[in-house]
Amino acid sequence: MSNVSVKTRVVGVDISYDTTTYAIVDIRGNIIAEENFPSAEYPEINNFVAKLSEAIITLVENNGGYETIRSIGISVPSGNYTTGCIVNSPNMPWKGVVPLAAMLRDRLGLAVALANDSHVVALGEYTFGAGHGMKNFVVVTLGHGVGSCFFSNGKIYLGSDGHAGEIGHTCVVPGGRECGCGNKGCLEAYVAAKGINQTARELMAASDQPSLMRSLEKLTPRTIFDCCEQCDEMAIEVFRRTGEFLGVGVANYASVLDPEAVIFTGGIAHAGHWLLDSTLESFKKHVFKNIKDRVKILVSTLNDHDRDVLGASVLAWDVPEYSLFK
Amino acid sequence: MSNVSVKTRVVGVDISYDTTTYAIVDIRGNIIAEENFPSAEYPEINNFVAKLSEAIITLVENNGGYETIRSIGISVPSGNYTTGCIVNSPNMPWKGVVPLAAMLRDRLGLAVALANDSHVVALGEYTFGAGHGMKNFVVVTLGHGVGSCFFSNGKIYLGSDGHAGEIGHTCVVPGGRECGCGNKGCLEAYVAAKGINQTARELMAASDQPSLMRSLEKLTPRTIFDCCEQCDEMAIEVFRRTGEFLGVGVANYASVLDPEAVIFTGGIAHAGHWLLDSTLESFKKHVFKNIKDRVKILVSTLNDHDRDVLGASVLAWDVPEYSLFK
Repeated sequence: MSNVSVKTRVVGVDISYDTTTYAIVDIRGNIIAEENFPSAEYPEINNFVAKLSEAIITLVENNGGYETIRSIGISVPSGNYTTGCIVNSPNMPWKGVVPLAAMLRDRLGLAVALANDSHVVALGEYTFGAGHGMKNFVVVTLGHGVGSCFFSNGKIYLGSDGHAGEIGHTCVVPGGRECGCGNKGCLEAYVAAKGINQTARELMAASDQPSLMRSLEKLTPRTIFDCCEQCDEMAIEVFRRTGEFLGVGVANYASVLDPEAVIFTGGIAHAGHWLLDSTLESFKKHVFKNIKDRVKILVSTLNDHDRDVLGASVLAWDVPEYSLFK
Repeated sequence: MSNVSVKTRVVGVDISYDTTTYAIVDIRGNIIAEENFPSAEYPEINNFVAKLSEAIITLVENNGGYETIRSIGISVPSGNYTTGCIVNSPNMPWKGVVPLAAMLRDRLGLAVALANDSHVVALGEYTFGAGHGMKNFVVVTLGHGVGSCFFSNGKIYLGSDGHAGEIGHTCVVPGGRECGCGNKGCLEAYVAAKGINQTARELMAASDQPSLMRSLEKLTPRTIFDCCEQCDEMAIEVFRRTGEFLGVGVANYASVLDPEAVIFTGGIAHAGHWLLDSTLESFKKHVFKNIKDRVKILVSTLNDHDRDVLGASVLAWDVPEYSLFK
């Protein structure tokens, strides 16, 4: 039995539109080493896979060696856990169906699991964050889009075809704003970054009320937040309205799922009380009354930087070790 | 081993506001014998339990005897599977928290399981109906209220406190009609019986257009349906609008759950194409586009009369036999 080695580490990879981050993580969620490169410089998928493989090999060789690594987990927008593919991503440079998990496995000879970024975030919260110890909870990611994931009896619920959790495309205003998906009145059209900017523009156009937002060089949730911090009334109203819509969407979700908690994460969750006070008020107004006072509304306890590679590392532990199949 | 008897039958009980129906059912879903009595004649819970116990004993003694009965399953509005209690039912005569499963178990010496009527309906569809062979699906019950239940990986999803599935109290019109629950714009306020009647009254009040509905003695979904069958334009519009709201609510549900199918059941589902054509159109307009053409929209294949006691019989098989604990 002397040649049986226990592999105590995994590689977590987080692929976003801007940046691909990859890290060696141990079973306790300690990040041993981490690097990144710009995703957008590799618009051709084979080049991207070649770059990522080399990058992982270099990182691993410089930090304990290949024999310590058990498997790889990947977080990517539009990722499908069941097939290991990126499927018709509207935001990533690689179009159609991309079998990324298989491509990376073939190059590296390690088991590779891949999942939707929203699902991976929830894995991180479950294992190392605000969802620890809960069996049924929802994580809502607020950023360029609005994603979500829910844990059902201690497992991620994927749905019949891996598409569960599309809270961003639930309707909160029938006949409302056009959404990028082609439907109307989707939650995402109101509470993702573009939607928040649009609410700000609509408010500025609707009155002559002075506002710091009028002199902003670039209108973003971040700059609108900065105006809130300077007590700009119109900017405060932007997040107040955003929270009203978010409260409806999350209430509808909670009324059908009866979760222990809803955990907000993502850049826009940093708007803090400017967003969350009205979210909570609207949530309580719209959720099924028997669960109104029991469902906890929480904000992620993981920092944004670590969150995604930690979640991806949890995913990596979940796949059987590749060598078992050889 | 000669004294080990295999108990091949259960008792399924369906308690509704009007009627309590109880039946002996075998494992294949054959109803061996069935009786009923009016629920409302027993406004005191101890009297109700005494009546139900005697009624079950008589039915069982006349049909094969006590030793053939394994356990009892009960379907009841506001039933909680986890605790075996009826909890704050707005419609039943017994107020507060009623430990009905325990009360009946103590009188009859048989294991008793109890669940929400919407959940029990889904058990019936899963075992004997349109959901057979599916692992992830939703059943929506349309009647005096709007209930739902979803199967997640072949099990009913109860939520963290047994309250999952309250689609009737998801918001489809922010700031809309007052619902019986105290919130505004709930799906139930538009597509349950009272809501349909209100839509009819609003349409009649809004114009002078002639309609058969104006001369109805009693306005109910059934009489409005009869007007549709006589091609009454305004009555047709009532169900068309109802379907639009239903489509939004079901689309929101499906976008987060990604089910294989949505199965409609309950009296109002009998409105058939008058309701379901616009429901399907609205569903496709509002659901997450990647699942739009895959989620099946179905109508229950079980007849209303059998549906509830069959579901309750499935629930009965699910509890451990009582004698194992003695």
